[in-house]
Amino acid sequence: MPQGKPETVPEDGLTTRQRRHRPLTVVHTGTMKGKSTAAFGLALRAWSAGMPVGVFQFVKSAKWRVGEEGAFAALGQAHEASGVGAPVAWHKMGEGWSWIQRAGTETDHAADALEGWRQVQRDLAAERYGMYVLDEFTYPMKWGWVDVGEVVETLRDRPGFQHVVITGREAAPALVEAADLVVEMTKIKHPMDAGQKGQRGIEW
Amino acid sequence: MPQGKPETVPEDGLTTRQRRHRPLTVVHTGTMKGKSTAAFGLALRAWSAGMPVGVFQFVKSAKWRVGEEGAFAALGQAHEASGVGAPVAWHKMGEGWSWIQRAGTETDHAADALEGWRQVQRDLAAERYGMYVLDEFTYPMKWGWVDVGEVVETLRDRPGFQHVVITGREAAPALVEAADLVVEMTKIKHPMDAGQKGQRGIEW
Repeated sequence: MPQGKPETVPEDGLTTRQRRHRPLTVVHTGTMKGKSTAAFGLALRAWSAGMPVGVFQFVKSAKWRVGEEGAFAALGQAHEASGVGAPVAWHKMGEGWSWIQRAGTETDHAADALEGWRQVQRDLAAERYGMYVLDEFTYPMKWGWVDVGEVVETLRDRPGFQHVVITGREAAPALVEAADLVVEMTKIKHPMDAGQKGQRGIEW
Repeated sequence: MPQGKPETVPEDGLTTRQRRHRPLTVVHTGTMKGKSTAAFGLALRAWSAGMPVGVFQFVKSAKWRVGEEGAFAALGQAHEASGVGAPVAWHKMGEGWSWIQRAGTETDHAADALEGWRQVQRDLAAERYGMYVLDEFTYPMKWGWVDVGEVVETLRDRPGFQHVVITGREAAPALVEAADLVVEMTKIKHPMDAGQKGQRGIEW
């Protein structure tokens, strides 16, 4: 879309300018990694545009995304020191791995995820951020810990100008339907196919 | 691959540790945007891991990626001020749009792109960065401005520990073959289909 020419013009009664300045719901899904990486790339751009960034890490353990967390901490400090960019808030919600539902701790994970979503709802109502990254948020929906219909409704009715990016595999059809932009990351080739393990600076 | 379990173990005589610490050639391709965004997400992570980052913008006009450029400038300054992360260098090579080959300026674009690649070669030889982002670099190859075989050879023979990420549509088969990791961004849904135009904080 680099030409900036829409393929169609909707009959929604909005001017181009109004349409241009509409908050977006973005979903990064698919089986390949890169979903979160791309989401943090979007957050980086939002930060540059002066939009406060709120990151909510669902499900994954705290040792993941340490790279991004450090970088965004530096960006938040740069904002405090010299006013460039915008404030950054980083929240880690879950424990354990997203693909393992450990017996005995499931209840806690579910409660944690739901409480994380409740905080997102409160922040959206308060218009606290300009860019929300709800990392791995498809899983709590998939597992029934957070109601998809409620998410769609909350996003649809959110006030002001707040972009929301949701990452994770197997995004619910209702969420895809509600989203403005959906990108699927597809694997063509991966070094682990050739026996290579993850490494610092690339995988985390 | 979050479990960190390779599907196969190659018979290359390397230990797991040696294989783990191997510089990667990564290609982000496909028709959907998000290729560069994801590349800058990787660069963000590399920065956090203390790897000097070198960005080379091929082809696109200087008004693109201003968001990322500003954010990485802040990260570079954070490194200078407090030692976190790593140094950042940002180079803009081309003028004009990647999908328009303007009559009369083609020669300059071709020469600019080739000179950009020559600088990348010099920097690789000098082991200047730990992470190279060659943004939109598939196009100079596609248009014959930079020889694909030479790129593959240079990347294959590069010294030390330097990751290279290349973005752009229609990556050459030889490049895909030579890459360790190839991700294709696929469009499922895009707001411009509904008549929306690009906007600050999302598109740039």
